[in-house]
Amino acid sequence: MDRWDKARQQAAAQGIDALLITPGADLRYLTGYHALPLERLTCLVLPVDGEPTLVVPGLERAAAEAAGVTLPIAPWNETEDPFELVARLVGTARRIGVDDHMWAARVFALRDALPEAEIVLGGAVVQALRIRKDPDEVAALREAGAAIDRVHAQVGQWLKPGRTEAEVGADIERAILAEHATCDFVIVGSGPNGASPHHEVSDRVIRAGDPVVVDIGGTMPSGYCSDCTRTYVAGGVRPPQEFLDLYQVLLQAQTAQREHARPGVTAESVDAVGRDIINQAGYGDLFIHRTGHGIGQETHEEPYIVAGNTVVLEDGMAFSIEPGIYREGHFGARIEDIVICTADGLEVLNNAPRDLIVLD
Amino acid sequence: MDRWDKARQQAAAQGIDALLITPGADLRYLTGYHALPLERLTCLVLPVDGEPTLVVPGLERAAAEAAGVTLPIAPWNETEDPFELVARLVGTARRIGVDDHMWAARVFALRDALPEAEIVLGGAVVQALRIRKDPDEVAALREAGAAIDRVHAQVGQWLKPGRTEAEVGADIERAILAEHATCDFVIVGSGPNGASPHHEVSDRVIRAGDPVVVDIGGTMPSGYCSDCTRTYVAGGVRPPQEFLDLYQVLLQAQTAQREHARPGVTAESVDAVGRDIINQAGYGDLFIHRTGHGIGQETHEEPYIVAGNTVVLEDGMAFSIEPGIYREGHFGARIEDIVICTADGLEVLNNAPRDLIVLD
Repeated sequence: MDRWDKARQQAAAQGIDALLITPGADLRYLTGYHALPLERLTCLVLPVDGEPTLVVPGLERAAAEAAGVTLPIAPWNETEDPFELVARLVGTARRIGVDDHMWAARVFALRDALPEAEIVLGGAVVQALRIRKDPDEVAALREAGAAIDRVHAQVGQWLKPGRTEAEVGADIERAILAEHATCDFVIVGSGPNGASPHHEVSDRVIRAGDPVVVDIGGTMPSGYCSDCTRTYVAGGVRPPQEFLDLYQVLLQAQTAQREHARPGVTAESVDAVGRDIINQAGYGDLFIHRTGHGIGQETHEEPYIVAGNTVVLEDGMAFSIEPGIYREGHFGARIEDIVICTADGLEVLNNAPRDLIVLD
Repeated sequence: MDRWDKARQQAAAQGIDALLITPGADLRYLTGYHALPLERLTCLVLPVDGEPTLVVPGLERAAAEAAGVTLPIAPWNETEDPFELVARLVGTARRIGVDDHMWAARVFALRDALPEAEIVLGGAVVQALRIRKDPDEVAALREAGAAIDRVHAQVGQWLKPGRTEAEVGADIERAILAEHATCDFVIVGSGPNGASPHHEVSDRVIRAGDPVVVDIGGTMPSGYCSDCTRTYVAGGVRPPQEFLDLYQVLLQAQTAQREHARPGVTAESVDAVGRDIINQAGYGDLFIHRTGHGIGQETHEEPYIVAGNTVVLEDGMAFSIEPGIYREGHFGARIEDIVICTADGLEVLNNAPRDLIVLD
């Protein structure tokens, strides 16, 4: 069964008569088309009973065909109302699911064009498919994991006292681009900057003995993403004992989470297993974020590994395990691997050493 | 009056009690904060009567402060419902405007969190401010225009028969990055690929005498965008006479549009002036897109220069003038400049020669 048929089946099960999907990961997943998020409407119309159609601006038709779209294409010209075209294609469908990332302006325009229809959030339909990776997707994520591991293997060459985070980040970015189609993010959080989990890079000069959080990722030509964090110590000076102690707790927590995660356990239990260890060591207030996020064609997608998420893990679910401990004003530490549930266990896609990497 | 006050005044005039603005150009415009479009909610709450607050995920707080956000920040933690936090900040406001690009999932979540409120599209509020650039913005767009002109001045070195579009595109991308903070797009449409207006690059080998549409742009460190198209002819062979004739019509149309555009005329009249010339020459069916789009912190924003848009141009409005003629299967041609209405005329921000650039 292809992805459209699965999406139709899932939509029907959720009581949705037709899906409307604008550019983004759901559209890529269903059609392979990496449409740009432009102001002109591109929208997949997927009725549960009926054939799918891709509505595209006339001047994007050639680009869509060149991208290998085999769906029937309905182009609209510059002075036409594309929402009326969508409404005609929706026909008699009454409960219309829109993708979670559809722009508000489009949701309101669809409501005006489809006054008889009920517009509901339809993201859960494609999410239910995307959350379990098929063997091709697993292979693509495995390849992405190996690619970012090769970048981490080189970080020690660049991360030297006296250089700025931005300089180190530029070297890392070049290495990511050599292994991936795009570089999505480079975090080099040295010393106190490591305590801001989503710090990027700055002009701070790295000092001897600084703990440095390096969290990096890109997208492969396949469209699948990498994301891996290791914590380094810049050469020359031993970091404070407090940091070394804290890192051992973090490593113990992340290890326990990798040993726990497998089909049949809940997403929130993976979070709890690590959080308990960090809490017991007295660092609970310093672990200020969830344990992880799903990954696939988006760096962050379902399932989220967070308290309150009672989703039971299944074969094919891919996500990060990335506990962190952050002492504001001083330093931070994080260890992150991407993992995938297998039929009876867990495959870990990042295999760079997890011990604190104390550079010369 | 600062931008928040202007936005409040404009919201009140549009009957809106509070604006909710998620990451994107509107948020950057109002706060200077380049928040990433993450799954965790970041949202500016701007009541017409009351102080603005920036709702951010706890782990983004440090990044927001480092980005220079001076607004009161309301952080939420990983297990809190951020929409309830927004609802508390909205208070008794009843007509709530959301930004045009807010994700559907958020629009629906806000409706649930604010059952008494009326959620409406609020994009027109900030749009009314953004559509007229202030002197600092004009200076930033002028700087962006000069930067992309310097890239076009180098294209002739790279665009040679025997090279692929992708190879030429890579050289152009490096040059854009040397002049801008990001490279946003590179179109190198050679021969028949030039007839697809949004073609990017391909492995097609450029041939002697091929017409080649080069449409490029990036974002400056200021956050403002460039966008400029010139049409080249690869060296060695004269292009077909039909192409040379067609290019002269295109240049005449684009020139007439630049001469016509000024405060007091409508957006659609600028389109019509060029379209009439192209129609009269018999190429009307080959001019398959509108004349242009506004530009600022987004490459495409209001005002759109298109039939049906009766907006009257005013001092400070910035937009592209980019007619094109496309003969499918053969070639295309486009000339694009960014222009800004001044008090009594038009400033043209791209000044690379507009004649057909026939390379040696």
